[in-house]
Amino acid sequence: MIESTTGPRPADFTDVRATNLAVVLRFVRENAPCSRADIAASTGLNKATVSSLVADLIDRRLVRETGLTENRVGRPATMLVLDGSPYAAVGIEANVDYLTAVAVDLAGRRLLSWRRSFPGAAASANQAVAAIASLARRVANRMAKEERQVLGLAVAVPGLVDVDGRVRIAPNLGWRDVDLAKDLTKALRDPGYRVQVDNDANLGALAEHRFGPFGGTANLVYLTGEVGVGAGVIMDGRLRRGGQGYSGELGHVQIDPAGPACRCGRVGCLEAVAGVGAIIGATASDPPIAPAEVEPEIEEVVRRARAGDRETLAMLERVGTALGAGVAILANVLNPQAVILGGYYVPLAPWLLPAAEAEVRARTLAPDAGGCRLAVSTLGHDAAALGGAAGVMDSIDSGRLPQRPS
Amino acid sequence: MIESTTGPRPADFTDVRATNLAVVLRFVRENAPCSRADIAASTGLNKATVSSLVADLIDRRLVRETGLTENRVGRPATMLVLDGSPYAAVGIEANVDYLTAVAVDLAGRRLLSWRRSFPGAAASANQAVAAIASLARRVANRMAKEERQVLGLAVAVPGLVDVDGRVRIAPNLGWRDVDLAKDLTKALRDPGYRVQVDNDANLGALAEHRFGPFGGTANLVYLTGEVGVGAGVIMDGRLRRGGQGYSGELGHVQIDPAGPACRCGRVGCLEAVAGVGAIIGATASDPPIAPAEVEPEIEEVVRRARAGDRETLAMLERVGTALGAGVAILANVLNPQAVILGGYYVPLAPWLLPAAEAEVRARTLAPDAGGCRLAVSTLGHDAAALGGAAGVMDSIDSGRLPQRPS
Repeated sequence: MIESTTGPRPADFTDVRATNLAVVLRFVRENAPCSRADIAASTGLNKATVSSLVADLIDRRLVRETGLTENRVGRPATMLVLDGSPYAAVGIEANVDYLTAVAVDLAGRRLLSWRRSFPGAAASANQAVAAIASLARRVANRMAKEERQVLGLAVAVPGLVDVDGRVRIAPNLGWRDVDLAKDLTKALRDPGYRVQVDNDANLGALAEHRFGPFGGTANLVYLTGEVGVGAGVIMDGRLRRGGQGYSGELGHVQIDPAGPACRCGRVGCLEAVAGVGAIIGATASDPPIAPAEVEPEIEEVVRRARAGDRETLAMLERVGTALGAGVAILANVLNPQAVILGGYYVPLAPWLLPAAEAEVRARTLAPDAGGCRLAVSTLGHDAAALGGAAGVMDSIDSGRLPQRPS
Repeated sequence: MIESTTGPRPADFTDVRATNLAVVLRFVRENAPCSRADIAASTGLNKATVSSLVADLIDRRLVRETGLTENRVGRPATMLVLDGSPYAAVGIEANVDYLTAVAVDLAGRRLLSWRRSFPGAAASANQAVAAIASLARRVANRMAKEERQVLGLAVAVPGLVDVDGRVRIAPNLGWRDVDLAKDLTKALRDPGYRVQVDNDANLGALAEHRFGPFGGTANLVYLTGEVGVGAGVIMDGRLRRGGQGYSGELGHVQIDPAGPACRCGRVGCLEAVAGVGAIIGATASDPPIAPAEVEPEIEEVVRRARAGDRETLAMLERVGTALGAGVAILANVLNPQAVILGGYYVPLAPWLLPAAEAEVRARTLAPDAGGCRLAVSTLGHDAAALGGAAGVMDSIDSGRLPQRPS
């Protein structure tokens, strides 16, 4: 036996209460404003239990009463909404030439959204750790000024991140075997909150799952359209990372054995035929793409496409078709309800999507692509950092509740 | 919001007991013979609770005392083992020219293993339902003679089976939109046990997960090497079926745009370059492969490979390489700990595996193929039917326990 499965765990009464706190919090999150009676009716918990749990959550300042009442027969009911105002969940994305930080309160409202440039490709891993820690401290200080306590920090990295938060390889940053979670915790000198690290596509998927229009969809995939192409996989409502944490590496699956060389050394990879490089005409033999140059080049492609430039439109159709071949692999293997395209695929979607959708439909065995819808992210370039914050919120929702403030 | 996720469910005290019964049953399954003290120490439940739960399970004849005691300081302890002898879990595979039935007791011991030929491709869906029901009745009668009660039946079908057990398409059987679970339940006239239907690769994965050498591995894939090639996907310890139940359809992912035509109408599919047809030299324009012919043809290929026939060895290397390209897609997207090859890949493994492994290693982004091991099934042609029985056992393990016999 290689590794034991996660099976049923013993449930003692502490667990039961923790689970029920999480259930009530989640119900309020999804149905606010709602009454205690609404919670009881929907969850099946009895009213005395619900009152006790709600009191606990109010005490921890996760839920509050609004004072509103609904029209109903009998006694008016006090409505409940999420509070979470004294807390913040923080996500930071470390990318090739910038760091992004997003903080949200526990109702998911955005509290801040910062970007600072950062020479990721040139800096060493140690310098990066220092820069990320410095940014995290600034965010925590701003939150403290607003009388909010940071409950957790999750950092998004473009690369192979294992289940313990160690960065195995981040090629665009030049990192190898960087124990980022540990190094950051040390640099932050025991910050009083948990530090997690994950792959940027994984966190993008979490962001879409919590905040996007497909929020709550049990089976979805988020596909990054940055310098790298990677996927975050959600099945049965949770991120599925695989044995070592490296799931979703679609970017170097071969789409065309006769295709162009890829920077990874292989030939005809999805990234080479449908990644940002293919769109802006950068081949494997050109110097590495400086991300600061990508944005203006993509804008130029959009401009030309809008102007009806034939070459550009033909290129986008080819890229869309190749992208569709990649998405079809996801549709066949994972049977997701939605595949959401992020990054630079977003501004180019009007020209990429028709060709891609046709290809997905043609290549997926199940009728109607197994019900898979190809969609465009609405979360912007914040997606991975927002996903970090979503990851922190997920921890809280599954029971890691903050203690009562003393 | 398309569909709500599965989130935490309210836990009342009935649930707690049901969960704990399942936890204790599972512990005994994995650690028998063991004492009540062992259960308490490992699960964290207190001794009085454990005694009460064990008494319940003994009452339901799921666990029994062996009378053995270990050497230990202090009072000798009575050891416990699984019982489950008055029960049976049944799996049936409906394939193109045979039906296979397997019955196991709740300790997983095989009670019977039958195969009867059946003209699946020629028969209508109704005739197939009648034949499957007839076989199920015969199995139940045999179990009744042994004083065992059938707790559940799961049927494996080669095709797209949705989450409700409806067969959307089974091309080799010529079925379309067959509500097999419902039709079988009706044909069996309210049999007193639950009838489930699932895809054959899914059930093969369950069989490997419960009974195979990689049993318990949290992330594994089973790949069928029958007339069709399909995958059953286990991530985080459970089968992941996707939005409509159609996950794992690897057989018609394109490996080579310049490859041979596939019977599905596409070109260069995995099935066309590395399926049984490719091995025995049957192309898309030949008549459909009669499975009764496959076995002798495969035996001939094995004979020639053993004799060192150059053409055969070259063919197997090509097929192995193409198979590796398909497995690499699984390794990249799912990051499994093991991919287990079944069906006709088993006798050909000595010649297929070296080329396949090399290709997986070369094509997977993560180092060392992300830790993915390519292995050969040891479960034989029974795998899907055995997996059906495993599926029934899974239902029991997650709490659908039989009542106390009256």
